[in-house]
Amino acid sequence: MTRLFRKHYHPAGTAPGTLRELSMEQAALHGPARFSLARRDAGRWGQMQEVLSEAIPEASGEAALYWLHVQGMPTAEELERLGDRVGLHPLAQEDILNGGQRPKVERFDESLVVILGIPEVDDEGRLHLYQLTLFMGGNMVASVMTESLDPFAEVRRRLKERGGRALGEPDDLLYGLLDAAVDHAFPVLDGIGERIEELEMEILNRPDSSTLELLHGLKRELIMLRRYLWPTREVINQLLRDHDDLFTADTRMWMRDVYDHTVQVMDLVESYRDMTASLLDVYLSSMSHRLNESMRTLTIIATVFMPLTFIAGVYGMNFEHPTSPFAMPELGWYWGYPVVWGVMLAAAIGMVIWFKRRRWF
Amino acid sequence: MTRLFRKHYHPAGTAPGTLRELSMEQAALHGPARFSLARRDAGRWGQMQEVLSEAIPEASGEAALYWLHVQGMPTAEELERLGDRVGLHPLAQEDILNGGQRPKVERFDESLVVILGIPEVDDEGRLHLYQLTLFMGGNMVASVMTESLDPFAEVRRRLKERGGRALGEPDDLLYGLLDAAVDHAFPVLDGIGERIEELEMEILNRPDSSTLELLHGLKRELIMLRRYLWPTREVINQLLRDHDDLFTADTRMWMRDVYDHTVQVMDLVESYRDMTASLLDVYLSSMSHRLNESMRTLTIIATVFMPLTFIAGVYGMNFEHPTSPFAMPELGWYWGYPVVWGVMLAAAIGMVIWFKRRRWF
Amino acid sequence: MTRLFRKHYHPAGTAPGTLRELSMEQAALHGPARFSLARRDAGRWGQMQEVLSEAIPEASGEAALYWLHVQGMPTAEELERLGDRVGLHPLAQEDILNGGQRPKVERFDESLVVILGIPEVDDEGRLHLYQLTLFMGGNMVASVMTESLDPFAEVRRRLKERGGRALGEPDDLLYGLLDAAVDHAFPVLDGIGERIEELEMEILNRPDSSTLELLHGLKRELIMLRRYLWPTREVINQLLRDHDDLFTADTRMWMRDVYDHTVQVMDLVESYRDMTASLLDVYLSSMSHRLNESMRTLTIIATVFMPLTFIAGVYGMNFEHPTSPFAMPELGWYWGYPVVWGVMLAAAIGMVIWFKRRRWF
Amino acid sequence: MTRLFRKHYHPAGTAPGTLRELSMEQAALHGPARFSLARRDAGRWGQMQEVLSEAIPEASGEAALYWLHVQGMPTAEELERLGDRVGLHPLAQEDILNGGQRPKVERFDESLVVILGIPEVDDEGRLHLYQLTLFMGGNMVASVMTESLDPFAEVRRRLKERGGRALGEPDDLLYGLLDAAVDHAFPVLDGIGERIEELEMEILNRPDSSTLELLHGLKRELIMLRRYLWPTREVINQLLRDHDDLFTADTRMWMRDVYDHTVQVMDLVESYRDMTASLLDVYLSSMSHRLNESMRTLTIIATVFMPLTFIAGVYGMNFEHPTSPFAMPELGWYWGYPVVWGVMLAAAIGMVIWFKRRRWF
Amino acid sequence: MTRLFRKHYHPAGTAPGTLRELSMEQAALHGPARFSLARRDAGRWGQMQEVLSEAIPEASGEAALYWLHVQGMPTAEELERLGDRVGLHPLAQEDILNGGQRPKVERFDESLVVILGIPEVDDEGRLHLYQLTLFMGGNMVASVMTESLDPFAEVRRRLKERGGRALGEPDDLLYGLLDAAVDHAFPVLDGIGERIEELEMEILNRPDSSTLELLHGLKRELIMLRRYLWPTREVINQLLRDHDDLFTADTRMWMRDVYDHTVQVMDLVESYRDMTASLLDVYLSSMSHRLNESMRTLTIIATVFMPLTFIAGVYGMNFEHPTSPFAMPELGWYWGYPVVWGVMLAAAIGMVIWFKRRRWF
Repeated sequence: MTRLFRKHYHPAGTAPGTLRELSMEQAALHGPARFSLARRDAGRWGQMQEVLSEAIPEASGEAALYWLHVQGMPTAEELERLGDRVGLHPLAQEDILNGGQRPKVERFDESLVVILGIPEVDDEGRLHLYQLTLFMGGNMVASVMTESLDPFAEVRRRLKERGGRALGEPDDLLYGLLDAAVDHAFPVLDGIGERIEELEMEILNRPDSSTLELLHGLKRELIMLRRYLWPTREVINQLLRDHDDLFTADTRMWMRDVYDHTVQVMDLVESYRDMTASLLDVYLSSMSHRLNESMRTLTIIATVFMPLTFIAGVYGMNFEHPTSPFAMPELGWYWGYPVVWGVMLAAAIGMVIWFKRRRWF
Repeated sequence: MTRLFRKHYHPAGTAPGTLRELSMEQAALHGPARFSLARRDAGRWGQMQEVLSEAIPEASGEAALYWLHVQGMPTAEELERLGDRVGLHPLAQEDILNGGQRPKVERFDESLVVILGIPEVDDEGRLHLYQLTLFMGGNMVASVMTESLDPFAEVRRRLKERGGRALGEPDDLLYGLLDAAVDHAFPVLDGIGERIEELEMEILNRPDSSTLELLHGLKRELIMLRRYLWPTREVINQLLRDHDDLFTADTRMWMRDVYDHTVQVMDLVESYRDMTASLLDVYLSSMSHRLNESMRTLTIIATVFMPLTFIAGVYGMNFEHPTSPFAMPELGWYWGYPVVWGVMLAAAIGMVIWFKRRRWF
Repeated sequence: MTRLFRKHYHPAGTAPGTLRELSMEQAALHGPARFSLARRDAGRWGQMQEVLSEAIPEASGEAALYWLHVQGMPTAEELERLGDRVGLHPLAQEDILNGGQRPKVERFDESLVVILGIPEVDDEGRLHLYQLTLFMGGNMVASVMTESLDPFAEVRRRLKERGGRALGEPDDLLYGLLDAAVDHAFPVLDGIGERIEELEMEILNRPDSSTLELLHGLKRELIMLRRYLWPTREVINQLLRDHDDLFTADTRMWMRDVYDHTVQVMDLVESYRDMTASLLDVYLSSMSHRLNESMRTLTIIATVFMPLTFIAGVYGMNFEHPTSPFAMPELGWYWGYPVVWGVMLAAAIGMVIWFKRRRWF
Repeated sequence: MTRLFRKHYHPAGTAPGTLRELSMEQAALHGPARFSLARRDAGRWGQMQEVLSEAIPEASGEAALYWLHVQGMPTAEELERLGDRVGLHPLAQEDILNGGQRPKVERFDESLVVILGIPEVDDEGRLHLYQLTLFMGGNMVASVMTESLDPFAEVRRRLKERGGRALGEPDDLLYGLLDAAVDHAFPVLDGIGERIEELEMEILNRPDSSTLELLHGLKRELIMLRRYLWPTREVINQLLRDHDDLFTADTRMWMRDVYDHTVQVMDLVESYRDMTASLLDVYLSSMSHRLNESMRTLTIIATVFMPLTFIAGVYGMNFEHPTSPFAMPELGWYWGYPVVWGVMLAAAIGMVIWFKRRRWF
Repeated sequence: MTRLFRKHYHPAGTAPGTLRELSMEQAALHGPARFSLARRDAGRWGQMQEVLSEAIPEASGEAALYWLHVQGMPTAEELERLGDRVGLHPLAQEDILNGGQRPKVERFDESLVVILGIPEVDDEGRLHLYQLTLFMGGNMVASVMTESLDPFAEVRRRLKERGGRALGEPDDLLYGLLDAAVDHAFPVLDGIGERIEELEMEILNRPDSSTLELLHGLKRELIMLRRYLWPTREVINQLLRDHDDLFTADTRMWMRDVYDHTVQVMDLVESYRDMTASLLDVYLSSMSHRLNESMRTLTIIATVFMPLTFIAGVYGMNFEHPTSPFAMPELGWYWGYPVVWGVMLAAAIGMVIWFKRRRWF
């Protein structure tokens, strides 16, 4: 199951901005970083190409626009080089290395660092939240995706196809990446919506013990999603509200669309939480209903047969006395046996009528 | 049952504003768009007439006021034409095509786009939320209803009857459409209120297993309604607060009335949620109460008859020994049988008294 | 039981301000309107007298102060006349006719319309919320109470007794009416408080199935009260905050007292909601406790007697074989019967000790 | 048990500020008012002395500072005299007489009236909330404690001991009284904390039916406390925020400390509410756990012994036919009896193994 | 178990700022205070050295920067000396002595007092919240940790290693200490996260009665943590918002990082609360599920065997009459015994089929 807590925190008191080297196993988990670079020149996007970290150009006032994408976990050394070239602040470098950050925006003078969490369901159906770091400064936009998900395939395709017309300014490009990142939540939520509807069917028709586990798994994922998606909304809002000097009026309008999406995502998460809560209620109520049903069946059976069995038991007793008129004389009556049957039937029918009256079945 | 999630989202990263062509089945679901146009000239409204999308006039400073109503899902091409003529922004076009939008207001310079969700219960009692897009710009007010509901029959009737006096300015007309759209929630909520009251009767008198399903269905609908109606309130509020330059003082006053209606609607939804929660509590409690009742009946019966059956069983044993005085001598006693009955009656009566004392019945 | 939803809404899209004629049965429910008028002149209040609606004076700058009280549901025609004379806005007229409005304040230039809901318990113990409309404009204060409750008996008595000194200005009179209206909630809440305390006793001592219905009834009423009383608080707050130009400093101080009362009322409603929630928990827990008790009694009885009955059953078997030493030789033993009793007693006592150890009783 | 609702409200519509005479029994409950007065002159506090209400000095610009403490319920007449002398507003007089007010601050020009609720546990362990009214105006600070609690013993001791240095200005004295009043909540909360911990032990170890009542009593008290302590925080905040002109910078700093205490008190109340909610969950869960345990014991016993008893019953039947080979030939078999025992043991052991496999014990 | 309430409050009404001497046992609990001092001079940090309280330098405008750390509970006398030397306000001294304060910031002119709670799990797994007081004034930063935890080992190591470059200004040093203090929460939360995951496994696989106690313990700790960590966030926020004049732009940026950590901590606490609530639901539901299972097993067994036992009981009756044809003639039939078996098998199979149809197993 997905881990609840995934931040690699420093020992408390470590100097902040200290770049901790990753342990071997962490490095293995993330894979080494690959750097790819696209350059927009003379109004056209060039091909995205893998580069060595040493070849990253400096963020400057130059006319060309660069998009640097880092896939995988960079080493502390690579991050520092990145810091030198594009002006990524040490705190942001630390956040990339540590992972598991809460979505946030940091403004360092003219550069902007945005950290988001991208939800993704892996092949085994487990939900992951991958940290995406976006940087915008000078003529450089950089994106760092430390884990194996590639969220920008579609964006690259668009740059390739529409070369000249697409995402021609830094703020425009940043918007494009944010939009792609935020929209990743929709298929995940769609999947959760489907699972909720399946569970609903199952619970209303034939709940069993695995249902409960599925329901708990859903709630767990919604708790996690909420923890990451709620601040995402705040991040986009902050961009619009506090850093609007970095965006043109046109881009701001598109950004409001992204903001609407984050609001919609949160609405869905909240509705799904309400739905799972309601499903749990249904589950518990139907359990309670079935318990009642079993109980009644049992009570009816027991109430009908216990007196009968007792009567049969009475006439199975072996009292015998040669002269006593009290030694079970019924056993010797001519009509004894039919009368006992009569009594037993009357008792049974009486019980059944009583239960019917009280609407027990 | 109504789907929880109905947005047709793009693959993440698609250029926003891209107009995706609808698939065949979607087109079939919505039906083709029909365009009708009413023109107000010289202080009178003309007849509403079907037009071809090519015949839509441009939104301009002209004196005549147009109301364009689109019923059904327009094609991407038609939407683009609409964009050209009346100035509908590409983002708004995309929202119309995608559907399932959260209610919102978008201001593009002097034009305004309002998206609302209109609740409607179909013939089979299922709740739907239909997206209504309203546009106001220049001398044009446009309404796009992509699904089969026609929310404006009453408004058209009014225009026809009161021709000269009714809704003579764009802001006035927009208000009239908003008012009609918002008030659509009342009959739906009225219906839900009635269902809650029926359920209440049922739960207090004779809950059965279908009750639970009905209750869950209600909660589900209220969750959905809340998701759409909550932002509706915010939309009207925003119109009043942020875009009051587009409305005359008089229209603002009428708009406050619309706002009051949205607040009232939300109050009702919240009260209904409280009511369904309370009903679930009653259901669970009455289940618990009935279980107790069955349990007590069972316990009383078992506690009374088990010892009796045991005693009867004892004297059904076949111990026999020619000389032993311990081989069930009771069986041979003169008063044996009556004494055993006495013991059994005493045990039974003792039990009953004990239960009475502890108020078990 | 009180209806959840009582607004008579128009078909969506009807022109707002349209005065719908009441149906016969509605008119019968409310009774015809009676108009009474009091006039304050030369510093003294005159007698309150029934007048015809045609005799209502116009709200003007005149020195005399009028209080017009309308009891019962006016016809559309009467309302329009009222609108003409005192300047009651068409929207306010519509709200009076429709009823079931959310408490609110409307300001039309210099006149003010306040709508409140007054809770009242009828003779059969049912809670009603009656709509009161107050109007202040020029030298006229008007109150419209469409239903049978008369909330101002005490105010009229005061005017009569204290003639010259009481409520001499429009804002002062409005305050007096608001104060009387708001304080109507206290006896209702007092009654609910008493019912909660009775229920508490009942639930802690001897809960039965009717308890649940009473508890649900309480919750229902609190939900309704909350829906009306919450906005009442907002109404008084708005008067103090947004319309303070209509009140003298002195009246504002008295109005703050009214505001404090509305806050206190809401505090009580919330506390009562918490109490009923807690009572439901107690009810469910005590049900659960009693179920446990029954269950244990049953388990103990069954666990003690089932093995005994089995043993007795064994020796009631009829195995017999002339030569086999295995054909229930125990039955023929000299000490057979006492030994069996010993075994049975030992089993029973062992069980009882085992239950004691596990603290089952 | 403590009453939920203790306000003596007027009939709705009574003129506010009307001083209602107390009924005999109310007067008996509160006891007559005693007035004590302390005077600070030449930088020293004099002794606190009982005075007649007629001897109360007027609040004036005089250099001497007075502290007037009223213990017990003053008559309407005494209150009016108080109003004349120290300038206590009629509304404040009414609040004192009515009691049960929500904590609040009222500013009348230069004078300030603060109403607080002081929680106190009486000898029988019942929680009470006593209303304290504080007044500051001119050179007079007055405190009115209508019920039997004396909250200021410690303050008086301090004045006596530290005479010259203590609480030398009106705002300073007011602060001292507020501080003493607010800190009264700590021992009460401490007591509740201890009761929660005892209940916790009890519920985790051996819950019984009285536990539930104790838990409900706790919740009830927390609901009451919350109702009074929440506005207390607001009162102190308002003093700091809106009436800071009446306090010196130094006193404001001490007042912030009082504010911190009110926040801490509310934090505790909220934590205790969370704790009691959690304890109820534990109670219900442990009930549910024990029910499961009983149920399993019963099911195991019944499942093991019912088939055995049935088998024994079968061979207790009396079929007999001289020639039929089907008339229970088993009864006559040489190995019949041991075989039946074997079957019974096998059935019992099989059942036990089955239960073990399913982890039933 | 950790105490819920640990403030040593004064009797209400005691003069604030009064330094209460600690009782013997309290002193023993905390241990005597040790004072250590580090001095930064000429751009380098010197060694941290134990000093006597008399040797503490005065906070002045001097160029050297001092860090004074107090470990353990100072006496009232020592605190007063501290107050004299570094300017610690009497209210802050009182807060140190009393302990259990809510996290808060106090500004006294140019000096700042910050009180935080540091969570720590002791060797026996119990959670403690230790109060840390930080003071910044002039060239002095002081930290007072009254209990046995030493939160600054890592900071001291850093000062030693990086001597010249580290934390060279008062605001910088204060930041360093705040950062270390806040980050102490991460390992504690990590531990709680692990316990939640273990509990999850346990509850989903094999819940037993100890599970409940563990779950309650978790909730209790989360309630406590929340009470302290929530205001911690507010404290850092206040520093950034209200006291930003005391921090350089650079330090403010690092402080925002601390703020992000406090937000992240609260997010985790809230998610954990949601998780424990969900786990309780799972526990209760699985209890309910198991109860259902037991109940059904019991009902099936009883329903199958009770009628059989009854039938066997009937033919164990001893009716006999020499001539009556009604004295259990079945017993003498040729096919009697097989027929009875047939009836019994048919009844049993019928029952099983009926249960199968209703999906009971």
